[in-house]
This record gives sequence, structure tokens and C-alpha cells, in this order.
Amino acid sequence: MNKEKRDMLFNQAKDWVLEAGRNIRHKIKDPLHIDTKSNANDLVTAMDKETEEFFADHIKGKYPDHSILSEEGFGDDLNSLEGVVWIIDPIDGTMNFVHQKKNFAISLAIYEDGIGEIGLIYDVMSDVLYQAKHGEGAYKNDIPLTPLDKDKKFEEVVFGLNHFWLCENRLVGEKYMQQFVKDVRGTRTYGSAALEFAFVAEGVLDGYLSMNLAPWDVAAGMVIVKETGGVTTNIDGNQLSLLDKDSVLTVNPSIQERLLDSYIKVGRK
Amino acid sequence: MNKEKRDMLFNQAKDWVLEAGRNIRHKIKDPLHIDTKSNANDLVTAMDKETEEFFADHIKGKYPDHSILSEEGFGDDLNSLEGVVWIIDPIDGTMNFVHQKKNFAISLAIYEDGIGEIGLIYDVMSDVLYQAKHGEGAYKNDIPLTPLDKDKKFEEVVFGLNHFWLCENRLVGEKYMQQFVKDVRGTRTYGSAALEFAFVAEGVLDGYLSMNLAPWDVAAGMVIVKETGGVTTNIDGNQLSLLDKDSVLTVNPSIQERLLDSYIKVGRK
Repeated sequence: MNKEKRDMLFNQAKDWVLEAGRNIRHKIKDPLHIDTKSNANDLVTAMDKETEEFFADHIKGKYPDHSILSEEGFGDDLNSLEGVVWIIDPIDGTMNFVHQKKNFAISLAIYEDGIGEIGLIYDVMSDVLYQAKHGEGAYKNDIPLTPLDKDKKFEEVVFGLNHFWLCENRLVGEKYMQQFVKDVRGTRTYGSAALEFAFVAEGVLDGYLSMNLAPWDVAAGMVIVKETGGVTTNIDGNQLSLLDKDSVLTVNPSIQERLLDSYIKVGRK
Repeated sequence: MNKEKRDMLFNQAKDWVLEAGRNIRHKIKDPLHIDTKSNANDLVTAMDKETEEFFADHIKGKYPDHSILSEEGFGDDLNSLEGVVWIIDPIDGTMNFVHQKKNFAISLAIYEDGIGEIGLIYDVMSDVLYQAKHGEGAYKNDIPLTPLDKDKKFEEVVFGLNHFWLCENRLVGEKYMQQFVKDVRGTRTYGSAALEFAFVAEGVLDGYLSMNLAPWDVAAGMVIVKETGGVTTNIDGNQLSLLDKDSVLTVNPSIQERLLDSYIKVGRK
């Protein structure tokens, strides 16, 4: 994608993301929309659909030759990433939306022929936009993110993962992951894959591991993380297809090898 | 403590907490104070001591008959909670301070004869102050926190705990805790006990469990949590002494019994 097209799409996507975020903030605070906690489940479903439809309508209206990959059914049924593809999660971190009314994000990426050109992750309630264009660095609002530490010491790692990695599971040996928890400085769990990707890009986390993520959970994060020097693979160390669900490791490359070799023991008990 | 005295101390403590927070924000953003990540360890040590000294100087100057319980050595050596005791953690969540430059808090409580009268937890970088006076409810900045859900369903619980509970440990059977993770809706780890107490008071978490906390990690949180209907004990279900370190469970009472009976198996493997 040339710079002119990328800039034009970036500005358009950013406007839509901010507008969708304003709408969610408005509705989450409106007592007509949410007056008891038991309504929160219905609200997230409604907001998820409404927000995705907002994007789909705008994209299809303005860019009829672009494709959409998304969760709630307003996108296309894609077998490849050919052409320009918008990959969208209207509300990433739905459990946080329901139970916390914060700590969720809009995740929007634009890929062309499989290359991540634009990544936007919008922490809606904090009004913080993580943003990146391919080859042009990443930003938190208007502040450039610094490149990741190339010599990250393992003992200083703060790492994002949910607690299931330490329970008996079908993917990896949990004993190795328990040892990992003991060997790093600290572990965190925030409950939004998109935000955890953004935190890896920001250096707030040195890596993030998740068992089963869809393309829309990771597509924007991959673009942003790459711009600060991070890498994203599945837990076998292979590239993600972005067409199917997969396990995901996004990480500071200076700890990637040790993590894959010593702790993430796929299929081993 | 009568209302007049409580209000007076509350207003004074709040002023000092906000002033200390402004000072930390100023220094954390000042490149003279922190120019590389490797300096962050020194910075937190310096800020911890400086902030505690600030409180100790002001308290001793204005209230010479009050006692101070705190971490960094500017407090008193107490054998009881008789009289008025300020219990202070100048920076709770030091790992977050060092590695994230956010998600840490000032925690300040005032107790009289063992009764928690005032609790203040200040999320410094977000400029959010959780505050409570005994018997007068809790607030997040100026917004009253709503009482906790008295019929919280276990399947809807979002719970804060660190990952060590799921690894082999000296306190409890980790297999039961792994089952707990599978039985609740979700788990989170934020890395600041004070903030996790505040989140329990707010209903953002339905409980928080920690292995080994000092009085200054929990004293303010206990006051705030109590005001929205939460309870705090050690993992045996007993009252905390607030003079020694202990394990801690702060929780919505509607799930307390099941948690203690079915999952926190002290001394069992």
C-alpha cells in the first residue's frame, strides 16, 4: 500500500473508531440503556452488533471493493486476505465491559494482501488510542511509543497471561508454565487481548500469551506490536494465518526463544 | 471517633495524599529523575522514602500524639493499635511503578483504637481517589460507590488473585484453586493490593486474594471495602491483626463462605 492510500485510510478509520467509541461511552453511561447489572449482558450484545454494523455500513458505503473480517456477522466470509481487508472487533474484552464497564477496546486493523498496514486499538472508557501505520512507528494518542528493550532480562519480565495456563489444559504442560510464573518478575491478567497487545507494544508487559484467539482479537495488535519491535506467532512459533482461531504469543523478541524452548511445552505434560 | 474529628482528619489526610501524588507524578515524568528504565528501581526506592517522610513529617508536626505504621522506617514500632494510628503505604504496587509507570497507589488509613475510621487509596497516575469514612459510605472521586450485589452468582464472579495460588505453594492446595479458576467467570491480576481492594469496593472485582500482605497494604482498603458491604479476613476466615503480615481475602460476602469452604484449602494438597 502506498503512503497516500495508507494515510487516507488511517485517517478515515481513526475517525470512525473515535465516533464508535463516543457512542459506546454515551450508551454505557445512560441509565436508559443500563439500569441494572443484569442488563449488562444484553447491553454488550447490543453494543457489539450496533458497533460492528456501524463500521460495516460505513466501510461498504465508502469502499465497496474492500472486505471485512469480523465477529458479529456483518462482515464477509473470507478464504484469503487478498485485497484490502478490515479486521474488526467492535468490543474486545466483553467480560470487562459487562462486569467492570471499563478495560475494553475497539480493535480495528486494515490489511492489504496479508500485510498489516494499519492498527488501531481504542481503550474506550480511558479515551486512549493506540495506533500504528506499517513502517511508521506506533503511538499512544499523540505520543510515540519507544522501541522495546533489546536486552530484556528474564528476571525483569512482567508478563500477561490468564490463569488457565497454570491449570490442566489441552495445549501445554501446566507445570512448565507454573515454573515460568516463578522465574519471571511478575504476571498480570487484564482480560482484553487487544489491550494486552497494546501493553506489549508499550513495554508495560513484555509479552502476552493466549490460548484461543480469533483474527479480530489480534490483527490490530500485531501491527502495533510490530512497530515497536515485538513479534507475534502461535505457541509453536509459527505465523498466524489470520483466517482461523489459534493460540497466540506476542512478545519482546529478546525473550521469545527462551519462552518457547523452556516453558511453552506444547502437547507435553 | 466523633464526626467532627473524623471530618477534620479526613480533609487533612486527603490534602496530603493529593499533594504527595502530584509530587510523584511530577517526578515520574521528569527526565532528570528517570532517564532510563534501569533507573526505575532507584527511583521507586527514593520516591517511597521521600513520600513516607513527607507524611511522617506532616503528621508528627501537626498531630504529635498520633502514631504511624508504615514500611520505610519513618513510622513507629507499634505493639498495639491503641490511640490514633496512621497506616501508610507510600507506593503500593512498586513493580507496576518500576515497569509500567502506572497502576500504583498511595494507601493511607487512619484507625482509632483498632477501628478503621478513614481510608484513602489514590491511583496516582489516573488521578482517581477512592475514599471512605467509617459509616458514611465510599466514593470514587466524588461519585458514591454502590453497595455490593447481595446475591452475586458464583458463575458471574470476576476475581483478583495472582498466579502463585495455582502453583505449588506452602499455604493451600493449588488443585482446589485451579478448580476455582475454572468455576468462576473470570480472573484478573493487577499487581497492586490497594487498587485491588478498591476494585472490590467498586464491584469491578468480586473478591481479591493475596498470600502475604502487610498492614499498610490492606488498612485503607479494608475501610473502603467495608463501606460498600465487603468483608476482609485472612484465609482461615479470621480477623486480621493489622500488626503483622498475613494472608488476605477481601470479598463480596455472598461468595465468602463457598470460597472458604470449597476452594481455599489451607494446608491441604
